[in-house]
Amino acid sequence: MKFTIKKNYFLEGVTQVARVISPTPVFQILKGIKVELTKEKMTLKASDSLVSVEYEIKAKNDKEQIIEVIEEGESVFPSKNFIDIIRKFPSNEIQIESLNKKINIKSENIEFNIQGYEEGEYPEFPEINKENKIILETKLLNSLIKETIFCTASNNQRPILEGVNFKLNKRILDALATDSYRLSKRREILKDIEKEKSFNIIIPKKALQYVQRIIEQKSGFVEIFYENNRILFIFENIKYSVLLINGNYPNTDSILKKEYENLIEIDSKNFYDAIDRVSLINKDEKNDVIKLNIRNDNMKVHSSSKELGTAEEEVFCEGKLNTEEIKINLSAKYLKEAIQAINSEKIKIKCSGPLSSFEMEPADNKKDIIQILLPIRTY
Amino acid sequence: MKFTIKKNYFLEGVTQVARVISPTPVFQILKGIKVELTKEKMTLKASDSLVSVEYEIKAKNDKEQIIEVIEEGESVFPSKNFIDIIRKFPSNEIQIESLNKKINIKSENIEFNIQGYEEGEYPEFPEINKENKIILETKLLNSLIKETIFCTASNNQRPILEGVNFKLNKRILDALATDSYRLSKRREILKDIEKEKSFNIIIPKKALQYVQRIIEQKSGFVEIFYENNRILFIFENIKYSVLLINGNYPNTDSILKKEYENLIEIDSKNFYDAIDRVSLINKDEKNDVIKLNIRNDNMKVHSSSKELGTAEEEVFCEGKLNTEEIKINLSAKYLKEAIQAINSEKIKIKCSGPLSSFEMEPADNKKDIIQILLPIRTY
Repeated sequence: MKFTIKKNYFLEGVTQVARVISPTPVFQILKGIKVELTKEKMTLKASDSLVSVEYEIKAKNDKEQIIEVIEEGESVFPSKNFIDIIRKFPSNEIQIESLNKKINIKSENIEFNIQGYEEGEYPEFPEINKENKIILETKLLNSLIKETIFCTASNNQRPILEGVNFKLNKRILDALATDSYRLSKRREILKDIEKEKSFNIIIPKKALQYVQRIIEQKSGFVEIFYENNRILFIFENIKYSVLLINGNYPNTDSILKKEYENLIEIDSKNFYDAIDRVSLINKDEKNDVIKLNIRNDNMKVHSSSKELGTAEEEVFCEGKLNTEEIKINLSAKYLKEAIQAINSEKIKIKCSGPLSSFEMEPADNKKDIIQILLPIRTY
Repeated sequence: MKFTIKKNYFLEGVTQVARVISPTPVFQILKGIKVELTKEKMTLKASDSLVSVEYEIKAKNDKEQIIEVIEEGESVFPSKNFIDIIRKFPSNEIQIESLNKKINIKSENIEFNIQGYEEGEYPEFPEINKENKIILETKLLNSLIKETIFCTASNNQRPILEGVNFKLNKRILDALATDSYRLSKRREILKDIEKEKSFNIIIPKKALQYVQRIIEQKSGFVEIFYENNRILFIFENIKYSVLLINGNYPNTDSILKKEYENLIEIDSKNFYDAIDRVSLINKDEKNDVIKLNIRNDNMKVHSSSKELGTAEEEVFCEGKLNTEEIKINLSAKYLKEAIQAINSEKIKIKCSGPLSSFEMEPADNKKDIIQILLPIRTY
């Protein structure tokens, strides 16, 4: 294999695929980047077993010749330090030749000779059945991920909670995540889709983070192909294949369909800022409990630390309470993340008492999102 | 003590003094910030025993009333989380009252009650004799520190090398640091100073880093008072007192006055970039050896890694060599830091051979600075 390539195109490609590479993969060969070169295009591949990514660079686009293919071929490049070497290359054009695992990278006055991997050892990427497909706008997909992923469990004993549950049924798409202390559910009606399309899958958190990085701040559409145990995202020149989490996601109907006795409306920013300030008093402590004391016309946001002291802020709210006041203890971090996910000017709060769940949603109904927090018991 | 204060002035003050506070001081009281309030001004004090800082806020400046003094007094505030509390305070004016170690901080709708320290326990700051004084421009002082401090030793068995040696004698001011593998010496002639003024002191690296942060990117003059074991920096409204390192700094004359057989001139940027690129090949390895192969008209910059391979770049240079070529092994990191400190378009290199020291200085003589590196022996 021998070619010259424009530095910025090559750099973008290797950066994108190298993201999935694990520093300690089960198979050493997965530390490498597979490069496949034909006269028409270069394909870069990388994988960490769970996720596999393919990135395509056309030899020529409308504007310019990107790759000068001197000899077609396949090779596995090392990924370690490789991106930095490309990034800091002094010339705009890089000449690369690969022969028997030896890779030579050079321009006028600089030359690297680096050790590649045996290309025959690189695993074949799984093919996905292209029968089942939906198309989502990047903006919507990004929002579905961003507004649920923070509720997935970490280092949990239940791996099933380390993903986001995506369900499609009768044009209703639900994304839901819970770590069993809090829950986020985001719903979107897909008008332009055939009614009989349906799935119920759990996508690993890590895979969603990669997808987010690719589509964030980009406009356009993502093609999604799904089958039993695998999903494929195609966006522009990137293909992104993910092994799904196996199993049945826990049923959350009982908590989602709960009836509440009290209703409160509050300004999002004031509520967020009060929690943010008041929780400074115990910010380095394990326990980040915020005590809310809600009345019909105001909410006291209170926190304390044995070492430092107490903090309290009053926020105006409009309550319809069945009781004089409600006291409830919640996690400052969870409250802040829930308010950020709702992202509306005003928030509607539903709650029943100190031991019952605490539900929040946008007051303006512009977006169908529900955030549920379980109270913290302090003894 | 009771007062209201404009948030931004108070925030700037507590931020500046809190920098010196150690998270694990010998005396618990040194976790606090001493606040002294009179009708005219507030003085904030903090210390970590080695360095002590005082910051003054006038009650009123030309433009506005900054502090409304309701009751004079002294108090020791906690520093932990305190800056964040002030930074995130919602109003521009903060009301603070301190009584019997209880500190109340509030504005309209928010209130913190925090625990202070016993003010009687706060140590008196040492007074310095104001007899011996020099005045330096912030720009010059910053340059003297920046161009030597990186050569001080870290976690060394010789604490004396963990500071910069400042010597004044017959209007010649020398700043010198060495970790025994490399050396940086910066000289400046102080024209406006009395000839008989002299000192020979070692200022701890940590103290110089604080001074740097205060004067960086500011113009003006720093007053410096010195005595046997202590130095005081005064800049604007900040006083900064430092305990010096005791002992005699090692004599470096033998290495500084060495004669060299060969002279080379090279473009700084090309030299730096070549080292930067070539050293990517072993950047995560312990050993960051760069091999230089110098001839009269070019220098080969070479590096290798067992794991990854080799890298080589050729840089044009103008040599006056007494031999056909010189090969020498040097640390990539040390070379890069030395080139940055010299900071001139072209560099003059002096060297004798693979086992002899390697000296660099600016080719344009705009600044009197010498960088010396010892070669690395590879077996």
